Amino acid sequence: MAENARMQSDILATPRALGQIRVVLVEPSHPGNIGGAARALKTMGMGQLVVVNPGRFPDPQAEWRAAGAQDVLDATRVCASLAEAIADCHWVVGTSTRSRRIPWPVGSAQQIAAEVLAQANARDDAQIAILFGRETSGLSNDELQQCHAHLRIPASAQYPSLNLAMAVQVVCYELHKHATTDLGDEDAAFVQGPASGDWDRPAATTQQLAAFYAHLEQVLVDAGFLDPQNPGQTMTRLRRLFARARPDETEIQILRGVLTQLGGATPPTSSADGE
Amino acid sequence: MAENARMQSDILATPRALGQIRVVLVEPSHPGNIGGAARALKTMGMGQLVVVNPGRFPDPQAEWRAAGAQDVLDATRVCASLAEAIADCHWVVGTSTRSRRIPWPVGSAQQIAAEVLAQANARDDAQIAILFGRETSGLSNDELQQCHAHLRIPASAQYPSLNLAMAVQVVCYELHKHATTDLGDEDAAFVQGPASGDWDRPAATTQQLAAFYAHLEQVLVDAGFLDPQNPGQTMTRLRRLFARARPDETEIQILRGVLTQLGGATPPTSSADGE
Repeated sequence: MAENARMQSDILATPRALGQIRVVLVEPSHPGNIGGAARALKTMGMGQLVVVNPGRFPDPQAEWRAAGAQDVLDATRVCASLAEAIADCHWVVGTSTRSRRIPWPVGSAQQIAAEVLAQANARDDAQIAILFGRETSGLSNDELQQCHAHLRIPASAQYPSLNLAMAVQVVCYELHKHATTDLGDEDAAFVQGPASGDWDRPAATTQQLAAFYAHLEQVLVDAGFLDPQNPGQTMTRLRRLFARARPDETEIQILRGVLTQLGGATPPTSSADGE
Repeated sequence: MAENARMQSDILATPRALGQIRVVLVEPSHPGNIGGAARALKTMGMGQLVVVNPGRFPDPQAEWRAAGAQDVLDATRVCASLAEAIADCHWVVGTSTRSRRIPWPVGSAQQIAAEVLAQANARDDAQIAILFGRETSGLSNDELQQCHAHLRIPASAQYPSLNLAMAVQVVCYELHKHATTDLGDEDAAFVQGPASGDWDRPAATTQQLAAFYAHLEQVLVDAGFLDPQNPGQTMTRLRRLFARARPDETEIQILRGVLTQLGGATPPTSSADGE
């Protein structure tokens, strides 16, 4: 069906590159955040979750928050040290909200996502880790210095403190977006209505529109709503309204059906009707 | 200090436009998600949260998840109906994971964020709502048809089901990103109609539109054009048409004048008409 085809083109198959990226939670204290992170990963086509020295895990709260991502939770690797978690990685990124005394290469979630995907796409065997710190204190300076780059999620100056699982969701969302989107398409203007490729009906032609306007005007004159001697701006405003909407063929058929029914007369068969 | 100065240039002041956007949670069942949403808004410089018929609220779980966003939670407005929540809004977006039988204008989180910010920046008095549905079933078809456009978060085909508060976080993140990033004017969306700053009339409110639709339906039923027992898709298609056009107040006055004249009866003075 056309509808299924549309679904499939909207929600793409999971790209291989996402399988090369692991999310590492360093000493998370709340098991709910581990479950929330597992769910966040799975919704974005990712599956590698690692936790370093978790406060409580496994835990029923983690399972509850994981919802349909129980498989990701079950496969979560528990490590005793950060070194163990990232031993085989080729690029390591640390999330951070603070500026450091010694500036480090730093990028926004969007910039880092682009870089991570470029690296994963360039080499099938590249392994990339993204580290998220403790709920209260984040990553330590020592941990951040083990990273190749730092990632900062743009946030409000008044309260930039995202919940841990929320931060994981935002970063995975950017990774998934960069992995699946032909960025040219995303940059395209937001096109609505029959001008977009996947609309269900073709846009009405200029001829069909002209016939509709003629019919509309006739009905309004017959009903005494419009004075042909002194029409004012009414038709102009109505034309502008429908021009913005860019009616499709079915919509024009409905509108003309309404006019015929309400107008009580035969529609004009002006030359604008064509054929 | 140099460190402080860097912080301030990295994390920008909150743009005014974000204050014109409200997040509406429709019938959320878990109070934790309301708290999580409040925190998500605050981290992204937003503050207007509305809940329609919440399952449990206020609730200690909401407060716990809100963390440092207690002020946003305290200011959360509780409404008895979606109509009440969006009555004064000029543009309404509904989040959706599914394709609909009748396609609606749809955009990714990124595309919709660009459009929302363009509208908010164009007019200081524009009010925009973004709706999020129930944890299990999302927004109903009827609720989605009250929206001018639908928003889809790109996600994995295997498990596209983001937690409610996570979805709020992703959308607010995109809004904040578009609000604070200096996108070239060239990239700005093409805003047409009353959403653009130089339009001659204000956009009709959701309440004015609802009254117009009720009037239109009544006239079509009275005229025998619409069978109330078997209405088909006619009203849905007409609503979609006018949603794309985004009528201004004068256009709605003209359309209602036409309906009154052609309908031959007094317009319904339904509650939707209210002040």
